Amino acid sequence: MSEQRTPVNETKAWAKLKNLRKKLEPDLKNWFESDPRRREHFSQSTDHVLFDYTRQLITEEVMDTLLELAEETDLKSSINSMFAGEKINVTEQRSVLHTALRNFSGNNVYLNGNDVMPDIKAVLSKIEGFSKKIINGELLGVKGDKLKNIVSVGIGGSYLGPEYLAEVSKASAIEGMNLYFIANVDPTDFVRKTEKLNPAETLVIIVSKTFTTAETMANARAVKSWMTNSLGDDPEVIKKHFIAVSTAQKRVEEFGIDPENMFGFWDWVGGRFSATSAVGGVPLSLYLGYDNFVEILKGAFWMDQHFQNQPFEKNIPVLAGLIDLWNINFMGYKTRAIVPYSQAWHKYAAHCQQTEMESNGKSVDLSGRSVEFDTGEVIFGEPGTNSQHSYFQLLHQGSSIVPIDFIGFINPQYKVESNEEISLHEELMTNFFAQPDALAFGKENELPHKVFTGNRPSNVFLLKNQNPFAAGLLLSLLEHRTAAKGFIWGINSFDQFGVELGKELGINIRERMKLYKKDPANPEVFSGLNVSTSELLKSFMEG
Amino acid sequence: MSEQRTPVNETKAWAKLKNLRKKLEPDLKNWFESDPRRREHFSQSTDHVLFDYTRQLITEEVMDTLLELAEETDLKSSINSMFAGEKINVTEQRSVLHTALRNFSGNNVYLNGNDVMPDIKAVLSKIEGFSKKIINGELLGVKGDKLKNIVSVGIGGSYLGPEYLAEVSKASAIEGMNLYFIANVDPTDFVRKTEKLNPAETLVIIVSKTFTTAETMANARAVKSWMTNSLGDDPEVIKKHFIAVSTAQKRVEEFGIDPENMFGFWDWVGGRFSATSAVGGVPLSLYLGYDNFVEILKGAFWMDQHFQNQPFEKNIPVLAGLIDLWNINFMGYKTRAIVPYSQAWHKYAAHCQQTEMESNGKSVDLSGRSVEFDTGEVIFGEPGTNSQHSYFQLLHQGSSIVPIDFIGFINPQYKVESNEEISLHEELMTNFFAQPDALAFGKENELPHKVFTGNRPSNVFLLKNQNPFAAGLLLSLLEHRTAAKGFIWGINSFDQFGVELGKELGINIRERMKLYKKDPANPEVFSGLNVSTSELLKSFMEG
Repeated sequence: MSEQRTPVNETKAWAKLKNLRKKLEPDLKNWFESDPRRREHFSQSTDHVLFDYTRQLITEEVMDTLLELAEETDLKSSINSMFAGEKINVTEQRSVLHTALRNFSGNNVYLNGNDVMPDIKAVLSKIEGFSKKIINGELLGVKGDKLKNIVSVGIGGSYLGPEYLAEVSKASAIEGMNLYFIANVDPTDFVRKTEKLNPAETLVIIVSKTFTTAETMANARAVKSWMTNSLGDDPEVIKKHFIAVSTAQKRVEEFGIDPENMFGFWDWVGGRFSATSAVGGVPLSLYLGYDNFVEILKGAFWMDQHFQNQPFEKNIPVLAGLIDLWNINFMGYKTRAIVPYSQAWHKYAAHCQQTEMESNGKSVDLSGRSVEFDTGEVIFGEPGTNSQHSYFQLLHQGSSIVPIDFIGFINPQYKVESNEEISLHEELMTNFFAQPDALAFGKENELPHKVFTGNRPSNVFLLKNQNPFAAGLLLSLLEHRTAAKGFIWGINSFDQFGVELGKELGINIRERMKLYKKDPANPEVFSGLNVSTSELLKSFMEG
Repeated sequence: MSEQRTPVNETKAWAKLKNLRKKLEPDLKNWFESDPRRREHFSQSTDHVLFDYTRQLITEEVMDTLLELAEETDLKSSINSMFAGEKINVTEQRSVLHTALRNFSGNNVYLNGNDVMPDIKAVLSKIEGFSKKIINGELLGVKGDKLKNIVSVGIGGSYLGPEYLAEVSKASAIEGMNLYFIANVDPTDFVRKTEKLNPAETLVIIVSKTFTTAETMANARAVKSWMTNSLGDDPEVIKKHFIAVSTAQKRVEEFGIDPENMFGFWDWVGGRFSATSAVGGVPLSLYLGYDNFVEILKGAFWMDQHFQNQPFEKNIPVLAGLIDLWNINFMGYKTRAIVPYSQAWHKYAAHCQQTEMESNGKSVDLSGRSVEFDTGEVIFGEPGTNSQHSYFQLLHQGSSIVPIDFIGFINPQYKVESNEEISLHEELMTNFFAQPDALAFGKENELPHKVFTGNRPSNVFLLKNQNPFAAGLLLSLLEHRTAAKGFIWGINSFDQFGVELGKELGINIRERMKLYKKDPANPEVFSGLNVSTSELLKSFMEG
């Protein structure tokens, strides 16, 4: 991670990969037929997940050279540095230690000479105690009601990961407990989530690291008014109905929240990597019970250990990351679709989109040089089979090639009684097995519009159960696959300065709106803006 | 549309555009500063939508040449052919007449010499009558209950459009009526949507053109069992609790549905263009009331007329389509983000994804030649500001450039009381005005990771109200923008043969699953499959 590092595109392995790409004549059909050992070479089977990358446009030589690239860029040191708490987020001078949040190894994790595990355990234990009291009705609302509706107010990293985990785990939710997320500052989001709730039965979690995020604080104040309008403008209402997940105790107290009801995390937990901190822990423990949150942590921990300990040639996040890099930098495929054959996983792609695109959507490397190669890909997706009836046409016959991650599960979440020959879940899975082959092998036809060219690459991930453990495992796999790419590219996957300029310009617009509302004729309202923004804003303010 | 048409990339305008691209030095900052008339040239203001494309990487010469391309490829004739009901879906020998579904002009629409309007009006009138009877409680369930829960079973085109329209229009829903969609064949989708419903109060709509779609029919049978298990295995249960939107009367009757309760459409309405047919009309009229469905139709009709009648230089779908084409074919930007600053619009991107990617994800032209240029782009999106806290990092600072459609509204759907200086909606809209500028103009900085390069293009669409009319208008804008590109590229945007091979292979897998369930030792179960699929299927079947 030193500043003097050779840019990845000047390494020997990179040059070799460039050559291999030039010589490559993708022919999956023939590769499968001529090499009976292709699956042995290009799949990894573990206790909890099977990863099959046979349908990637790679040869053994390509894979070996990708592994050489990982060696040459010293990926192993980067991974070790991350787990060891070194300040690898160099622009913000922060460690990146979300793995410590689910460290069940019994080992200490030192940061600046101090073990962070006691603090982590203390927060977990606080979450456990608090969530049990709410679920058991030992802590009640100000009017004596059971607090059964949990409203989590947060955006971005304080929202997408927890929502994904909650959606997967819904089948394990505590009877009678409900969880809602308010993220967008649009009043539609606020009203739709609150209109049917009784404030007396509602517990609100404000999730914001700094307690200053504009959207979250605007929503927090709106929920506060909604609550006090109904239950009375009494500090007790806030104390009993509001809790916080934050690192900013002073601001939390100013809001009126009892500091006892603040659940902390740390500056070494980045927003998009915070789902296994109190950010996810508090809402998920209240909704699913603490034990199910621990299952999520255990799934993540299992994958953390795999990532930390497996040699690269068997290491699923590393292999998947290397294949992404091959597709992006050598094949020129800069978009990837994530298609879980599971409705429970319907929010996974949105979380992946954040993790990958916010982490690796960067154009300068750790030395501050502009990179001369592509970095993070565009990620999108919807569950299968819905996807098949929507955008898959382009994936099968479009002019662009879009690599796909197929994710499937052996067991359904629910068994639906039926007299059918095959179950709904089996019907679903027929598609899961068929699509990768259709893409890879294609089909000839005399009619041009019925030709499938094939050689469209995909990964297949097969897991056993659709449960909190698997949700945690796939969360961690995503995190490490993303980080592995960033390490190899030599970029900082852990900052997000790209969001700053929009915020800054937004503040400027806000000031103009305020001026207009005081005096529409004030010449300062629209002055100094470009002609487009000025006209747009005028149309808006004038209604 | 003749077979002899010159490929678009061999036209004069295409060659000219290629040259213009070569000479182009994108510099939005300077272009804005040096040309006070840029907004006048690159924006269109209409009664219902303002379209600002000032931040595209175009000059007047580029725009003029794009318009020449539209002339040279005879876009006008293609549009006329579509509206006139010619069989422009040549591979399936079908007309493409979704515009007739919302034709309030009073003019006839002839197809093979017959006016289709009487049939359309008859179905609309049937929808009106039926939905009013259900809403008013004149038609009750078999046990005498009011039918207040509508469950619409359908997938792809029978689902995404109606869901988008329903989500936008939720604020106008009839008090007490609920609408649920079951699309995926995953039992999780089925159970989550039905577990809290009382079958006695539930009306099920089976939406399938052919009444053979595997997923929809499997779900239809599952819902039927759920219903008859509770209400009794009596033909009256099906007659009173099931209706159909389909073109296949015989199969609908075989299912047990009263042919009186079948709402028809026609082979000239493609799945992804069917939201304004009975496919959307039946569920939306039951949920929102027929009058609100008519508002959707009116919004679509307004845009249909605009598309049909406005000269290209003022024609929003044509201009937007030409700009897409410029970005895809000349700038090399093959991915587009759709970002409505409205939580009500949260399903719009998924519908756009289907419409664009299924329509234009093609690689052969109307003459059956492989195209030598890129066609349909990858479409993705989530509402703003959520997007800003998720994947926008890549859009601001990533190595790839992703054009964006910003969609905003002057009025919120709900007013939330507050003492704040600016409302939640205004807070939201500060971002809407700030983001396009941040992307377009960027910002310099001494610190490389804080540099914003700018010149990242976007469109801005501003509408007045978030209501059914606007939902219909943006639906139609999407449809015509998609079609305009397809016409210019000379591809068939109205078929979808790319989904066939996967279906075919799926049937093969289904047969193997059946064999396995009869006899796991049957050697035919896994024989003849490639080694990957065979091992994956084995892992699945053996559990």
